[in-house]
Amino acid sequence: MTQALVSIIMGSDSDLDVMQECAEVLKEFNVPFSMQVMSAHRTPDIVAKFASLAAKNGIRVIIAGAGGAAHLAGAVAAHTTLPVIGVPLAATDLSGMDALLATVQMPAGIPVATVAVGKPGAKNAALLAVQILSLTNSELAKVLESYKIKLAESCQKKNEKLQEKLKKS
Amino acid sequence: MTQALVSIIMGSDSDLDVMQECAEVLKEFNVPFSMQVMSAHRTPDIVAKFASLAAKNGIRVIIAGAGGAAHLAGAVAAHTTLPVIGVPLAATDLSGMDALLATVQMPAGIPVATVAVGKPGAKNAALLAVQILSLTNSELAKVLESYKIKLAESCQKKNEKLQEKLKKS
Amino acid sequence: MTQALVSIIMGSDSDLDVMQECAEVLKEFNVPFSMQVMSAHRTPDIVAKFASLAAKNGIRVIIAGAGGAAHLAGAVAAHTTLPVIGVPLAATDLSGMDALLATVQMPAGIPVATVAVGKPGAKNAALLAVQILSLTNSELAKVLESYKIKLAESCQKKNEKLQEKLKKS
Amino acid sequence: MTQALVSIIMGSDSDLDVMQECAEVLKEFNVPFSMQVMSAHRTPDIVAKFASLAAKNGIRVIIAGAGGAAHLAGAVAAHTTLPVIGVPLAATDLSGMDALLATVQMPAGIPVATVAVGKPGAKNAALLAVQILSLTNSELAKVLESYKIKLAESCQKKNEKLQEKLKKS
Amino acid sequence: MTQALVSIIMGSDSDLDVMQECAEVLKEFNVPFSMQVMSAHRTPDIVAKFASLAAKNGIRVIIAGAGGAAHLAGAVAAHTTLPVIGVPLAATDLSGMDALLATVQMPAGIPVATVAVGKPGAKNAALLAVQILSLTNSELAKVLESYKIKLAESCQKKNEKLQEKLKKS
Amino acid sequence: MTQALVSIIMGSDSDLDVMQECAEVLKEFNVPFSMQVMSAHRTPDIVAKFASLAAKNGIRVIIAGAGGAAHLAGAVAAHTTLPVIGVPLAATDLSGMDALLATVQMPAGIPVATVAVGKPGAKNAALLAVQILSLTNSELAKVLESYKIKLAESCQKKNEKLQEKLKKS
Amino acid sequence: MTQALVSIIMGSDSDLDVMQECAEVLKEFNVPFSMQVMSAHRTPDIVAKFASLAAKNGIRVIIAGAGGAAHLAGAVAAHTTLPVIGVPLAATDLSGMDALLATVQMPAGIPVATVAVGKPGAKNAALLAVQILSLTNSELAKVLESYKIKLAESCQKKNEKLQEKLKKS
Amino acid sequence: MTQALVSIIMGSDSDLDVMQECAEVLKEFNVPFSMQVMSAHRTPDIVAKFASLAAKNGIRVIIAGAGGAAHLAGAVAAHTTLPVIGVPLAATDLSGMDALLATVQMPAGIPVATVAVGKPGAKNAALLAVQILSLTNSELAKVLESYKIKLAESCQKKNEKLQEKLKKS
Repeated sequence: MTQALVSIIMGSDSDLDVMQECAEVLKEFNVPFSMQVMSAHRTPDIVAKFASLAAKNGIRVIIAGAGGAAHLAGAVAAHTTLPVIGVPLAATDLSGMDALLATVQMPAGIPVATVAVGKPGAKNAALLAVQILSLTNSELAKVLESYKIKLAESCQKKNEKLQEKLKKS
Repeated sequence: MTQALVSIIMGSDSDLDVMQECAEVLKEFNVPFSMQVMSAHRTPDIVAKFASLAAKNGIRVIIAGAGGAAHLAGAVAAHTTLPVIGVPLAATDLSGMDALLATVQMPAGIPVATVAVGKPGAKNAALLAVQILSLTNSELAKVLESYKIKLAESCQKKNEKLQEKLKKS
Repeated sequence: MTQALVSIIMGSDSDLDVMQECAEVLKEFNVPFSMQVMSAHRTPDIVAKFASLAAKNGIRVIIAGAGGAAHLAGAVAAHTTLPVIGVPLAATDLSGMDALLATVQMPAGIPVATVAVGKPGAKNAALLAVQILSLTNSELAKVLESYKIKLAESCQKKNEKLQEKLKKS
Repeated sequence: MTQALVSIIMGSDSDLDVMQECAEVLKEFNVPFSMQVMSAHRTPDIVAKFASLAAKNGIRVIIAGAGGAAHLAGAVAAHTTLPVIGVPLAATDLSGMDALLATVQMPAGIPVATVAVGKPGAKNAALLAVQILSLTNSELAKVLESYKIKLAESCQKKNEKLQEKLKKS
Repeated sequence: MTQALVSIIMGSDSDLDVMQECAEVLKEFNVPFSMQVMSAHRTPDIVAKFASLAAKNGIRVIIAGAGGAAHLAGAVAAHTTLPVIGVPLAATDLSGMDALLATVQMPAGIPVATVAVGKPGAKNAALLAVQILSLTNSELAKVLESYKIKLAESCQKKNEKLQEKLKKS
Repeated sequence: MTQALVSIIMGSDSDLDVMQECAEVLKEFNVPFSMQVMSAHRTPDIVAKFASLAAKNGIRVIIAGAGGAAHLAGAVAAHTTLPVIGVPLAATDLSGMDALLATVQMPAGIPVATVAVGKPGAKNAALLAVQILSLTNSELAKVLESYKIKLAESCQKKNEKLQEKLKKS
Repeated sequence: MTQALVSIIMGSDSDLDVMQECAEVLKEFNVPFSMQVMSAHRTPDIVAKFASLAAKNGIRVIIAGAGGAAHLAGAVAAHTTLPVIGVPLAATDLSGMDALLATVQMPAGIPVATVAVGKPGAKNAALLAVQILSLTNSELAKVLESYKIKLAESCQKKNEKLQEKLKKS
Repeated sequence: MTQALVSIIMGSDSDLDVMQECAEVLKEFNVPFSMQVMSAHRTPDIVAKFASLAAKNGIRVIIAGAGGAAHLAGAVAAHTTLPVIGVPLAATDLSGMDALLATVQMPAGIPVATVAVGKPGAKNAALLAVQILSLTNSELAKVLESYKIKLAESCQKKNEKLQEKLKKS
């Protein structure tokens, strides 16, 4: 297996449904990644060790998804100088507002790159990782540009379909 | 110096003004305590070590104050089975709502006993620690009861002053 | 029946589904507990009497679950110097934000140890009670430590399952 | 002194500045009132006794102002069938949103008539009390109607001043 | 038909399901009431006329339920000196927080007695009306007191059931 | 004086400081306007009459600023088919969130064109009115276009100043 | 086909269900409109071109619906001096509060006329467009007035039905 | 002057005070940067051109600060595949909650790496940019690691000072 460049971690296996979106995007870009369940609160030493060794293990970007008092991304960021992307998950009665604030409001010195709550955020976390990797991978950069074009085309096709539908009605 | 039973920690020395309220209450109850600055994000290993050794070092209750993406209490709770009390601080533009949610919304398995945002919370964190210690210290329990009576009396005195003021007007 | 050390109370029997999580955890730790429905608003005298006598009746920690303008924990805390743990419940259209603020924002002098909204909070309330009791019960402290280890192991097992699943795909 | 018909209570003497607005309105309407400091958390028995006896003591409407986890109005409502008006105060870092939700979100069975946060609410609490008393006091009803007319006239005068100002500019 | 003392109004017939709770309580207390659909925005003149004539028509208390930018209670309060009770309804994507703020945050001079969002609020609006009417109806006052006792008893019965259930398990 | 095309109204003269921003913009565009204090709650009949006659009086667009339970724009919209623009004002402890929701969450059938809270909103309300008037006033449309160009130029000049400042440092 | 006067755009075809409400209202008023999918983020150049040419293409009012970080209306407003109406959609875990703030809080200089979140807003956006067009189309103005009358009548009919229902019960 | 690798942009020169924090950090790391005022709403074409050419111009990371309906980061992200970091600014009455949601809640396909509201976020945006650049600059990576060590040391020194202060008192 190829060496993972991106590491996706999540606080619980119940987060897998959302974080799978990350994995799909990375597969689409042929970016090798690992995916693990580890918890800032239940397995803090594993998180600390993982984060401390990530750079040595060849990881370039870490994506951490968590809900509630979402500390996973921050806990990882505390132990590494790699870019850490946080995906706030809507896992409690407070609809993800708790996870968003617990992820994004990091103190000066320890950044977490936060994306949207839930699935759109999970997808964008992967794209952000690809953008970062593309800075030194001109081939990946090209794929990213065609991805952006496809996004635009897909949007235009939806519009064309709507126009046809409108004509018929 | 007597062995500290309560440990007050805070993420930054800018939190001292609020967390000092904790110290005042513990002094009032003659409960020996330590007070330290340590950060879940800037000195995570110190926090982990502190929390892991706290019980062995004779600490019975830990009080952690932090603002923003307030992870300090949760990071400590991850490394100890001692009761951990979290004081959310209003240290950002979001008025402490961020710290409150980041402190209280802990996942099942790792509790943090959360108190009010800011100074009332800091005071109550100390009182909660005293309540816990009183469970096996009958003398402290008595002091706590007279404290509660004094609280009531102080409230009644304020009322008496108001009555006098009303009579005059 | 053994003397209850923890008392679980709730404002309405509709809260039982969530507060049952408390009971399950206490059973797991063999901590004797009682569980009662009483309301800060509908049966205030029962609450006052219950709280005033709790310490004499051998109770060491009180756990109170309530939704909406959740006053139950605060009403109990007003009548006792025992530690009171508040579980905010999502029982109204406002998703538990009302119960969280009504439980946690206690004035200086009368603390309520607040945990997360809903089921994770109910579970953690019980664990917090066990942590407090463990301070003077070395056997319970050991069980608590193995519980923490099991939590970590369960998290690791979930990760192992994920790794197997990833290999297959 | 005339028998008070309205009772203004507040959780702390620091609330006096706001609750004084209540008193001013009641004076304006010549409605006899009492004003007291009592706390749902610090002097719960005084609150319970006060509320239980209020009707017998000739009180017709109770106005309770409190901040934070504002339980005062609810605690009073639990012990009386008199109408209870709650004034949420902005006394914490959360700007009164905590007091508003803790006052208004009462469970079915025990209403609290909640008004706006802070001074406008304090004023309106008194007016609401006057409206209630006016139902059986035709003279008071007339004064209330002229008050309403004066309110409108004062608004129109402000408009006239603005028109003059605009003409000059 | 007996002259209505309480008038229940609502902005739309889609609010009937919640506002029916008001009607049930008033029936239980044998308080004659009317119930109407009228809208502050769609039929403002009907609302203004209704409110202006309410007192003359023998109405003593008005209960207004509305969702979204809930102006109905305020619009009524602008045209009457009768007590107006506002029930905020959760009728939009914002879960009733919009209706709560639009109902409760009235300016000084024009109070609206606001109750909880949704069904508990609808029930309590009716009880508040009964409390107000009881001030000059000693028979109603007695029924209200027995209602309060029944509330307490029902709460105690729920507790008894829970105790039986706990014994069995 | 020229016939006013835009009418600026506000609930209180304390709103004048913010709503003056509207007036300044309209003056800049030479759009004749009137400005009045009237209140949805204190002078509802004046508001209703004003709104009902506005179209006949030559008004084309109405701008209404209000804070708290901000009903003014909605009350006007209920009585006219002219476009009504609502400016939510931060006039209470809740920082304008109350006014925003009370203004924007209008029910289907009665729109209010809502702009930002406070001064930026007041300015934009006037610009929106100018945009609407420009649809049938080609000269005004040209002025609007040069305004937009000036906005861009002013932004570019700020950038140029920054570049100079950066060079020096 | 008649020249469109109103242009409805939306960020995604998943918004069609809500934005269809706009179309229905415009059909009811016989106002010719176009409807397109275009995205401020996926097809920014199409949006810029569309907005820049809208006025020349005979469009008078633009309605833009978007969810999440809802930039579509603002992006259009940046490129045109036509009135732009923004419909915030509840498309994420945050229930439309994100879209509302991202749409309404525009900086001074570039207004977006914001309506309610979701379907009521979509409907009202169309009505607001009709109100604007009616300013120079007296026939449309008449239809709008009868629409307003029908709204009131429909509300009154709902009331009549309720009265019949109440009589029977 | 060296070719800028990071580009800091902001919507208004009033944002300079906060965004200056970015510049300070980049200077500290000797990372060449440019800083410009440009607005998603006032100068959209400049933003589009800037973003489209940024990669060709040697820029590797873009940092965009904006308040209110903060679209600047999203508008840039729409035109580039470079990583874009968004800094939400507290520039309105809503304390930055508006800017946070408008920045972070981007739709799937177009990520914005969002950091905390205000100054801590501005500082962290720069650090995040340095982390990204460090992935292919081993010297910068070393400086980043010593920065992280200094952060920890500074935190420890604050603790030492506190210990000295405590000894004296």
